[in-house]
Amino acid sequence: MKIRLALLLSLFLTLTLVGCNNNPTPTAPTAAQPTAAVDPLPSWNDGPAKQAILDFVKATTDKASPKFVAPEDRIATFDQDGTTWVEHPIYSQVLFAFDRVAEMAPQHPEWKTKMPFKAIVTGDKEAMAKFTTKDLEVIAMTTHTGMTAEAFGPLVKEWMAKAKHPKFDKPYPQMVYQPMLEVMKYLRDNGYRTYIVTGGGQDFVRSYALAAYGIPPEQIIGSALDTQYAYNQEGQGILMRDPKLLLNNNGVGKAEDIYLFIGKRPKAAFGNTDGDRQMLEYTQASGGASLEMLVLHDDATREFAYGPAQGLPDTKVGTFPQSLYDEAKAKGWTVISMKNDWKQIFSWEK
Amino acid sequence: MKIRLALLLSLFLTLTLVGCNNNPTPTAPTAAQPTAAVDPLPSWNDGPAKQAILDFVKATTDKASPKFVAPEDRIATFDQDGTTWVEHPIYSQVLFAFDRVAEMAPQHPEWKTKMPFKAIVTGDKEAMAKFTTKDLEVIAMTTHTGMTAEAFGPLVKEWMAKAKHPKFDKPYPQMVYQPMLEVMKYLRDNGYRTYIVTGGGQDFVRSYALAAYGIPPEQIIGSALDTQYAYNQEGQGILMRDPKLLLNNNGVGKAEDIYLFIGKRPKAAFGNTDGDRQMLEYTQASGGASLEMLVLHDDATREFAYGPAQGLPDTKVGTFPQSLYDEAKAKGWTVISMKNDWKQIFSWEK
Repeated sequence: MKIRLALLLSLFLTLTLVGCNNNPTPTAPTAAQPTAAVDPLPSWNDGPAKQAILDFVKATTDKASPKFVAPEDRIATFDQDGTTWVEHPIYSQVLFAFDRVAEMAPQHPEWKTKMPFKAIVTGDKEAMAKFTTKDLEVIAMTTHTGMTAEAFGPLVKEWMAKAKHPKFDKPYPQMVYQPMLEVMKYLRDNGYRTYIVTGGGQDFVRSYALAAYGIPPEQIIGSALDTQYAYNQEGQGILMRDPKLLLNNNGVGKAEDIYLFIGKRPKAAFGNTDGDRQMLEYTQASGGASLEMLVLHDDATREFAYGPAQGLPDTKVGTFPQSLYDEAKAKGWTVISMKNDWKQIFSWEK
Repeated sequence: MKIRLALLLSLFLTLTLVGCNNNPTPTAPTAAQPTAAVDPLPSWNDGPAKQAILDFVKATTDKASPKFVAPEDRIATFDQDGTTWVEHPIYSQVLFAFDRVAEMAPQHPEWKTKMPFKAIVTGDKEAMAKFTTKDLEVIAMTTHTGMTAEAFGPLVKEWMAKAKHPKFDKPYPQMVYQPMLEVMKYLRDNGYRTYIVTGGGQDFVRSYALAAYGIPPEQIIGSALDTQYAYNQEGQGILMRDPKLLLNNNGVGKAEDIYLFIGKRPKAAFGNTDGDRQMLEYTQASGGASLEMLVLHDDATREFAYGPAQGLPDTKVGTFPQSLYDEAKAKGWTVISMKNDWKQIFSWEK
């Protein structure tokens, strides 16, 4: 997770640190249910973004259309953090890693005096703010490896059931954007297979994506650790999670891994940062009809506002640079204004 | 492809070399259609192998069964070479590589005097028999890279339409085992998702698997080369095939890559060599009902006979060692005797 860590974790430290989540109240993740209606996108305001989606689906599923796409080629890919759920002020997976340090601490008395763990265990936010990239790598690898492949998912599920977002004070599954759930369902209803293509950990997202998005594990492509085949005491074949990055699924990695996993180009792709640029380019290069969309977080009231494109604050998490905005305009990609295009952001808003 | 090359290509040289295929007659690959009948496995003789399949499907799809498997966990994985189609006397992909050298030769006049290409171009079987592992790597990388990701599949498709098996003199799509097509269809009809998990090239198999097996590209897991993101002259995002092995999908690699791609253990796995051992072990470790099957090639009359398990000839391609046979017996895996369990091997036999 080298690049992701450098990008994501260290930048988090420029923001207000939030404490470890120790809230014991279990809240089960619930499957989000887009509202059934004549309008397949009720949480979207009428406008160019909504229209682009409707036009794309119509053009690619009408057999009489010159832009008709065969069912086997109907693939849509979605970035996760900042595209299908909230990424501010801290990536959920970073919070998970810090919470896991706190949870593992009783079995590691040496952490009381050993950095970087000491900073987390003692809640020393000043020290945490000084974490180096190497510190953050150590934290990520310590909290994400040393267990069987199958043992990791339940740890994430347990955390997802209790961890709450620092601003909204709601469990993370409720941080999913209702308009994106509607787009996913609308695409699936029209024969598209929906994939999450995330810079985040593949196994992390796989543990909750069926409940949160209706997307099964094999349709989650993410950054992935290596595993090592071994035998347990019963002589059974198991896989151990290894502290070695196998796939860095960000930037060019997204295009490469889409090809590795799916073997063809998407026809629709959704993102919100520079790390999604190549995924959208690769999608558009499929030729014929394609849909490329970028979420611009310009709603400080209902969610967060950050860019730095279009003069929005440069918060350094989920960077949407002006160059990406310019490329979108030049290439006919659609920029979704969260403020103007989304009537409702979260399922629980009304 | 290091290990695979060492294993597969060099061993090929111990066998009678077959010439490059220059037959220009196009024969389109046809989708194989298992016979519809009350018996879902008409090409299987009654016996323990057929019964194991029927029992497994019944136990895992009957909601009243203690071994019921939820639909989302119904995953079946199949090795390809020697399990779902013929691998003797030469792996199809090796033949493809040699044929491609012959096809590329006019653009490479230097090959007339440059080994290892010279041996292939001039049909010098004696020199080919002396190829080193390094020679074979050079041939594989030269014939499989240096093009866009999307340009490779059509080359394979074109070859598949004309290349014929050296013994049976039929196009490769007709080298598929009818009994395995029936098992795949039977499993799919019962809610299983069928995957090919092959030591062969992922993109090679993806190019014809839908036609040959009814399996889409995203359900083909194989050895994979790295790709490099680049821009073409029109400024579009493309992926170039890189001469670097990213995934060696053989042995432990099969278990690791199944987890990487699917995120869970299979409930059924089919193989025929030592390279499938860990896939079957990993499948069995899923607990509850599981099905592990190994094809033993003991039919020299209708196909080929090789082991060396059970005293069969040791031909060094598709090795089924006695230790694998012993593990199968000890762990309750089912060994399929091609001679006794398969009433019909190929769709065109009758």
